[in-house]
Amino acid sequence: MENTDLQDYSHKRYNILTGEWVLVSPHRAKRPWQGQNEAVNNEKRPTYDETCYLCAGNTRINGEVNPKYEDVFVFTNDFAALQNDSKSFEVNDGLLVAQSETGICKVICFSPDHSKSLADMTPVEIQKVVFQWQKEYKELANNPAINYVQIFENKGAVMGCSNPHPHGQIWSQSTLPNEVDKKNIQQVNYYSKNKTSLLGDYLSQELEKQERIIFENDNFVVLIPFWAVWPFETMIVPKKHQTNILEMDDAQALQYAEAIAVITKAYDKLFNTSFPYSSGIHQSPTDGNENKHWHWHMSFYPPLLRSATVKKFMVGYEMFGSPQRDITAESAVKMIKALL
Amino acid sequence: MENTDLQDYSHKRYNILTGEWVLVSPHRAKRPWQGQNEAVNNEKRPTYDETCYLCAGNTRINGEVNPKYEDVFVFTNDFAALQNDSKSFEVNDGLLVAQSETGICKVICFSPDHSKSLADMTPVEIQKVVFQWQKEYKELANNPAINYVQIFENKGAVMGCSNPHPHGQIWSQSTLPNEVDKKNIQQVNYYSKNKTSLLGDYLSQELEKQERIIFENDNFVVLIPFWAVWPFETMIVPKKHQTNILEMDDAQALQYAEAIAVITKAYDKLFNTSFPYSSGIHQSPTDGNENKHWHWHMSFYPPLLRSATVKKFMVGYEMFGSPQRDITAESAVKMIKALL
Ligand SMILES: O=P(O)(O)O[C@H]1O[C@H](CO)[C@@H](O)[C@H](O)[C@H]1O
Ligand SMILES: O=P(O)(O)O[C@H]1O[C@H](CO)[C@@H](O)[C@H](O)[C@H]1O
Repeated sequence: MENTDLQDYSHKRYNILTGEWVLVSPHRAKRPWQGQNEAVNNEKRPTYDETCYLCAGNTRINGEVNPKYEDVFVFTNDFAALQNDSKSFEVNDGLLVAQSETGICKVICFSPDHSKSLADMTPVEIQKVVFQWQKEYKELANNPAINYVQIFENKGAVMGCSNPHPHGQIWSQSTLPNEVDKKNIQQVNYYSKNKTSLLGDYLSQELEKQERIIFENDNFVVLIPFWAVWPFETMIVPKKHQTNILEMDDAQALQYAEAIAVITKAYDKLFNTSFPYSSGIHQSPTDGNENKHWHWHMSFYPPLLRSATVKKFMVGYEMFGSPQRDITAESAVKMIKALL
Repeated sequence: MENTDLQDYSHKRYNILTGEWVLVSPHRAKRPWQGQNEAVNNEKRPTYDETCYLCAGNTRINGEVNPKYEDVFVFTNDFAALQNDSKSFEVNDGLLVAQSETGICKVICFSPDHSKSLADMTPVEIQKVVFQWQKEYKELANNPAINYVQIFENKGAVMGCSNPHPHGQIWSQSTLPNEVDKKNIQQVNYYSKNKTSLLGDYLSQELEKQERIIFENDNFVVLIPFWAVWPFETMIVPKKHQTNILEMDDAQALQYAEAIAVITKAYDKLFNTSFPYSSGIHQSPTDGNENKHWHWHMSFYPPLLRSATVKKFMVGYEMFGSPQRDITAESAVKMIKALL
């Protein structure tokens, strides 16, 4: 049985993957909201938009023409934050420390259909996206200058997504970003001590308790982690200990696609809107090491709190102190499960 | 002379206070923006609003009546995220780890004038806010259950501020929040090695270089730290090594107020709007130790990037990887200095 104190009193929960804490204030959900409301656009989009630079056959800002692609399409970001030909330098001037960083940034269109999102796609269609992620990860992993590959999606205007055409991004670079570095350290410490995967052991505990599990099939679990920060944050975890997405075979890729379909569809039902989020896959670095301590997973960080228009603001206290949430992971699980 | 590579090529800069990195992509500022625009409300507010629960003489949601205050007014948050009478418990169930957390959350009104913000107040008026911060910090420091006091302000609807009446908050608690913990570790490591303040030594370097300094008076410096994350992030630092705000005398408090006035007024001029931000003071814990390694400072994290309506989104890559910025700290300094 779950400790009911967790539903009644302010507390902090430990994120085993990052080593950081989240402040949980269950009683605070009663607070009335008088602040900013987000704009919602529930208008159905056309399947093709001639002004969209991601639609098949259209011309991008740099003059390149998109092919008439039929499922997935990848190209190098026209305004990449990381470039692979940029100069190498270092600054080590007393307390001013900087290093050049190179990388490759790509855009991946999930479907030629402008009107869709992952939530509207079938597992078989999503599986093609997964295959493409595998292909890109593999290719980038073979590049000696690339040591980490970050696959992510920003969905919805409120998440800074500048084009509603279904797409994600892949930013790859030569060093480990902060969040990955934290998870790398926590996992390596656990693995060298226990010779088992941190996330795998956590998953066994959750599967036994069945208090934060949203969905499972033979190979994947969708759950709200005990330490979730965002109101409806979820995580997809492979049941087997796999360090990265290349370890999935085709049948597993379909089950992973099913898990993505299930959670994104439930999200859309929650507030009756195309549910905004940033999602991302954390997996083993592509530095040539075995990285046995890594257990890959995909997380969804959705900003909405109470309705299609009221989001959780991660501001003052959250920026200067720790992330803070009002509804508990356990109540969020119940709300999402009711929609499956 | 500044390394010009920093203005031309992607790189990461090291935050000496947190031990984390920020990715800087100077060339990316040319990217066109087709995403969400924020709503701006440049309408002048009345000096008194009968529906505002922070205006003097008005009744709050819990039935309490605000006094007819004349400068600053403090009360305990009606929907506090932390409570001082909540139950104490611990969860140590395998990989599920949680701890109860108690604390006191207060709201501080900066002025009875509903139409104002810190940017519209004189240094003498702001000094009264500083005096109140000192008083609250001192009182909470004397409470044995409180080991850290976080003073902050969320300004503007885009920063989750639900009431435009000029006010900030003070959340105090029994343990160190994540961000404070990181800065505590970095500062203690440096101090035990060098017997000098990390931020003090950094400040000397910046004062010599004069490349990121926005303003200074006898006791304070306003600068953009080398590792700033937000496009127009700034920091106010006392020149003398002071661990917390109680070490300021009244004359220094006035100079600190002047620094706040200068930067908030410049912010408002930048995009010709009441500039949104979260600000916060990081200072020594109130755990009864000397904390000689701490050097207090105030930071401003403003979200706007290019105009009153276009903000920087810290989403996908930033959430899963590292924070990323487009314009460099050095170009932001030039833009702000031109407005002084
Ligand atoms: O307490 P307020 O102003 O209602 O709420 C605001 O500040 C808090 C502290 O940063 C945040 O947790 C909330 O998300 C935000 O909306
Ligand atoms: O690359 P996009 O989609 O134009 O931009 C979006 O995602 C990026 C990566 O998370 C962020 O840095 C930008 O702030 C955001 O607007």
